[in-house]
Amino acid sequence: MARWEPDAAGRLREAAMDLYVERGFEQTTVAEIAQRAGVTARTFFRHYADKREVLFAGSADLRNALTQAIAGAPATASPMRAVALALDAAAAVLGRRHAFSRRRQGIIDANPELRERELIKMDTLAAAMAGALRDRDVPGPAATLAAEAGIVVLRVAFERWVSTPHPTDLTPLMRETLTDLTAILDR
Amino acid sequence: MARWEPDAAGRLREAAMDLYVERGFEQTTVAEIAQRAGVTARTFFRHYADKREVLFAGSADLRNALTQAIAGAPATASPMRAVALALDAAAAVLGRRHAFSRRRQGIIDANPELRERELIKMDTLAAAMAGALRDRDVPGPAATLAAEAGIVVLRVAFERWVSTPHPTDLTPLMRETLTDLTAILDR
Repeated sequence: MARWEPDAAGRLREAAMDLYVERGFEQTTVAEIAQRAGVTARTFFRHYADKREVLFAGSADLRNALTQAIAGAPATASPMRAVALALDAAAAVLGRRHAFSRRRQGIIDANPELRERELIKMDTLAAAMAGALRDRDVPGPAATLAAEAGIVVLRVAFERWVSTPHPTDLTPLMRETLTDLTAILDR
Repeated sequence: MARWEPDAAGRLREAAMDLYVERGFEQTTVAEIAQRAGVTARTFFRHYADKREVLFAGSADLRNALTQAIAGAPATASPMRAVALALDAAAAVLGRRHAFSRRRQGIIDANPELRERELIKMDTLAAAMAGALRDRDVPGPAATLAAEAGIVVLRVAFERWVSTPHPTDLTPLMRETLTDLTAILDR
């Protein structure tokens, strides 16, 4: 059991998701997740801080995609254009795993603690985007508004995407949602 | 101590805020709040579920102001026009207590648990506004986008307002922030 495990993190994640769906998040223990994945609890804790973080391990990749796209946007790009590029980058990261994202969303929606954790994640992503915009010399309030608008688009587009049973491309949905938000504000 | 207390809720709130500033939120107990307000702990619990709710007791009033303004908007009003009226109503409710709001914000900013509770409150307000818009036959995704955009404006305008040491009128700040968001999305 203590031997090297190829892709233990991935197997632990799959085992955890199966158990969260079968028994509910609260009723599942780390010991059970490790057992189902065929590893020790110690191996679990080498990969995840706790059973909640299994569902949030991808948020660092998402944050990096968002902030790097803003940092790499053309110098002439408006704040919202930089955010639109960040949303494309987010769609590329998130859009790879439709089935996983759908299952994950079902687990999160069923548990108030996980919904809170997801809200905190979104707030952290908005703050990171606002910081990346300020690094481009966008003034503070405009940076916050553009970043928060971006997160609204990301959340709504993602919800639309995971609520479709068949995998579709997230990028056009993200762009369409941004266009929708702009149109709604203009009316 | 068990006698009828005029405005016990208000005195408890003031005592709690004083203690949260002096000692920190975590270090303050309900017994200490009650003692400083000159009432029993039992009286505290008649007014507030716990020490955290002292800071969130106003959120029902705010939710009602937002949803009633949307429900009462002219039938011809666009979703965002209804949200703009809701923001005016929110400014009228929140704008009465600048000194209180500043102190409260300082306490919340200093404590991660309270910041999370505030995020959840904002999410609840957005959901209530989206529901009020759907009741006006606004389609689901448009209702969510308009409501979330409204909450972004409310949060940013409120942050601007509480960061000014002298009391100013919240209503023009709220309107200006909505105009700013619209302009940012159009660029």
